[in-house]
Amino acid sequence: MRHLLTLEELSPAEIERVFSISEDLKSKCEQGLREPLLPGRVMALIFEKPSLRTRVSFETGMAHLGGSSLFLGNDVGFGRRESLADFARVLSEYVDVLVVRANRHTTVEELAKYSTRPVINGLTDRAHPCQAMADLFTIRELAGTLRGRTLAWIGDGNNVACSLAIGCGKVGMKMVMATPKGYRFDAPFMTRLNEIVPDLELTVTDDPKAAVRDAVAVYTDVWTSMGQEAEAEKRRRDFAGYQVNAQLMAHAQQETLFMHCLPAHRGEEVTDEVMDGPQSVAVQQAGNRMHVQKGILAWLLGAQA
Amino acid sequence: MRHLLTLEELSPAEIERVFSISEDLKSKCEQGLREPLLPGRVMALIFEKPSLRTRVSFETGMAHLGGSSLFLGNDVGFGRRESLADFARVLSEYVDVLVVRANRHTTVEELAKYSTRPVINGLTDRAHPCQAMADLFTIRELAGTLRGRTLAWIGDGNNVACSLAIGCGKVGMKMVMATPKGYRFDAPFMTRLNEIVPDLELTVTDDPKAAVRDAVAVYTDVWTSMGQEAEAEKRRRDFAGYQVNAQLMAHAQQETLFMHCLPAHRGEEVTDEVMDGPQSVAVQQAGNRMHVQKGILAWLLGAQA
Amino acid sequence: MRHLLTLEELSPAEIERVFSISEDLKSKCEQGLREPLLPGRVMALIFEKPSLRTRVSFETGMAHLGGSSLFLGNDVGFGRRESLADFARVLSEYVDVLVVRANRHTTVEELAKYSTRPVINGLTDRAHPCQAMADLFTIRELAGTLRGRTLAWIGDGNNVACSLAIGCGKVGMKMVMATPKGYRFDAPFMTRLNEIVPDLELTVTDDPKAAVRDAVAVYTDVWTSMGQEAEAEKRRRDFAGYQVNAQLMAHAQQETLFMHCLPAHRGEEVTDEVMDGPQSVAVQQAGNRMHVQKGILAWLLGAQA
Repeated sequence: MRHLLTLEELSPAEIERVFSISEDLKSKCEQGLREPLLPGRVMALIFEKPSLRTRVSFETGMAHLGGSSLFLGNDVGFGRRESLADFARVLSEYVDVLVVRANRHTTVEELAKYSTRPVINGLTDRAHPCQAMADLFTIRELAGTLRGRTLAWIGDGNNVACSLAIGCGKVGMKMVMATPKGYRFDAPFMTRLNEIVPDLELTVTDDPKAAVRDAVAVYTDVWTSMGQEAEAEKRRRDFAGYQVNAQLMAHAQQETLFMHCLPAHRGEEVTDEVMDGPQSVAVQQAGNRMHVQKGILAWLLGAQA
Repeated sequence: MRHLLTLEELSPAEIERVFSISEDLKSKCEQGLREPLLPGRVMALIFEKPSLRTRVSFETGMAHLGGSSLFLGNDVGFGRRESLADFARVLSEYVDVLVVRANRHTTVEELAKYSTRPVINGLTDRAHPCQAMADLFTIRELAGTLRGRTLAWIGDGNNVACSLAIGCGKVGMKMVMATPKGYRFDAPFMTRLNEIVPDLELTVTDDPKAAVRDAVAVYTDVWTSMGQEAEAEKRRRDFAGYQVNAQLMAHAQQETLFMHCLPAHRGEEVTDEVMDGPQSVAVQQAGNRMHVQKGILAWLLGAQA
Repeated sequence: MRHLLTLEELSPAEIERVFSISEDLKSKCEQGLREPLLPGRVMALIFEKPSLRTRVSFETGMAHLGGSSLFLGNDVGFGRRESLADFARVLSEYVDVLVVRANRHTTVEELAKYSTRPVINGLTDRAHPCQAMADLFTIRELAGTLRGRTLAWIGDGNNVACSLAIGCGKVGMKMVMATPKGYRFDAPFMTRLNEIVPDLELTVTDDPKAAVRDAVAVYTDVWTSMGQEAEAEKRRRDFAGYQVNAQLMAHAQQETLFMHCLPAHRGEEVTDEVMDGPQSVAVQQAGNRMHVQKGILAWLLGAQA
């Protein structure tokens, strides 16, 4: 049995295997075929934070596969009414797979330690592997090969950026980050990254224009994530020069994709013009969350059989 | 692709088509047959207000059809975390149909504008088309033909009354409203109604006894709807003579149906005697919500195929 | 049509019938077979109190059987927006079975009175029949026969204890309760118990060591249940000598099972050593909630066909 807590755990061949399953399922889905590969299987979603995309894409994907979902949110006394270990052991008696969105990455690790069913990380403070998988799948789909291409990340070195960095390393992509000082990957993560994907070419700059020049995709995210509202004013100042607007995109290629993991704060990190422009693939990217997660579920639960 | 935001959008032939599908599905359901016409399809329910009937009848109906439901309630940051347009575009990537209960009708219209999937109005301040469809279906089922019959509405000219007026016009029924001054349809809606269903015979009176005389069905609703609690006292005074009780029903025919869209405030707009009496079809009417909504779903999603 | 409000309603033969269905379903489930015995059937869960095990075990079980669940929680205005009778009548128009967790047993009885669909008690102040069924099934599974064996209950004479006492009487088991004065079954329940299961051998003592001596299973539960938090301090004092720890288990047999209906307050009613020790079957017991409830659902809804 396998978990999916970070992309560190997946080999390049496994990532390609998941993409291949996802591609097949997406193609069938678009023809109206929803193969019930997981009939009678049940997925529990345990979410300490609210979610639209993660919840709906997972639940819908499971329904397409013939399975069911149980959205437990944060109402189950998760770690309050009883120990996380007891919670994980009991839940494993019922459901086939757990998707967990947690404030702290250690919570997901703790659940995985005691669960006898696969645990999928649906976002923590340190990683968002399903998002990064969907993002790489989207680039692969729209730009062809991944190897040797460059992803430009404009903004905060947050959980999504961390997962993308590992993902880029795994699939042979380069990453350029335009990120203000104070918001870059911290030293422990840089050390970790170097251990996980020693061949990753990672460039960090404070010049967004230089960052986007050779990029296959320009990616940004909100400056202020859930839980950081107190820092919003300071962040708006610090990220002022990092908005992805038409002026910045003019420094990229015409075929460069614009990506955003959503929800967007339009007028802050991205303008309407870019978000709704011809280069934007944010909506397809959101749609691919579902297709890739169906691939992940089929792969994880198939691996169990 | 079609939406169902108000009954205005449905032609008489389409209403009859939905009734015919619903009748067939109800008959099969009563024999224990639950035809999976929509396997693997997923419906999202977005509800700004609480609901029992609408939620349960839609979710159960979808389950009968082999599909799944996602009750998102009001937790998804609907129009707060991101724009309604982005919300609608992303949700359209996942689910096959949206049911929306909104405080303001414009919210449903806005979602329909950006959604690439059918949007069904599950109640707004201005319309409750699924309720009116179920009501007309119930009269059709119990009283035979609709054309030329008279529906007596006793009470507030609210969203249900608006949808029934349009519905009556569409199917050739007359409508008599016994409604106190100040609670009748406003001038803009009267103008609109005249444009949509110019042939509708609508009589408005302050004499409930006269209203019920030739009615195939006497219909009432709570005097104070969700959100109007501050006006409850004033409304109780203004509607005092409009209670549907045995005395009033004595002015109707013996075979006249009593209808209520529920929940009821027993002892206010209706007495226990009428509500639980032999003429009351309130419970069947509630049951028909499910059967008719199954028809609507099959029709809307079939129309897509 | 049958309800399951307390174990009083089940004959010994019916209990054995449910166990036999459950055993068959569990064995198939462990081979990965999830027989869709209830396709298109819908279960509503109405819960006045939070729940992990009851909710997840029922919903997962229903999914295994090919049906769907509607978790209504406490949001539906249950007895506030309308009468319980209207609520039950309308819900019966939609769903096939109701699972109700209520603060007061009379609420479940009232719903059962008006529902035209089976109502299953998912915990009230007076009874927890599904828990007791799962517990007896677990003993039957691990210790062979039930008849003539002794269950030792160490702790509060609460709802679980009440249901176990009736259950023991029905299947021919003896029950020994080590319970402080003031927490034992009250006189009305003792009278009732004697009417329902006159042959039950019930011993009540304040000596836990004597209680466990010949027990096939030693069972405990939290000293302070949901809603009793104000009494927590007093209860901790009164139950001080009733902890199930290694010292107490040393007075039982080596093959005696340790049982707990969870969640546990480790360090209060039970030590980690016992809870995680080789005699503990708490996790399997929790798992059996699902298997036995699948048996109950199949039996109740099959009985309808």
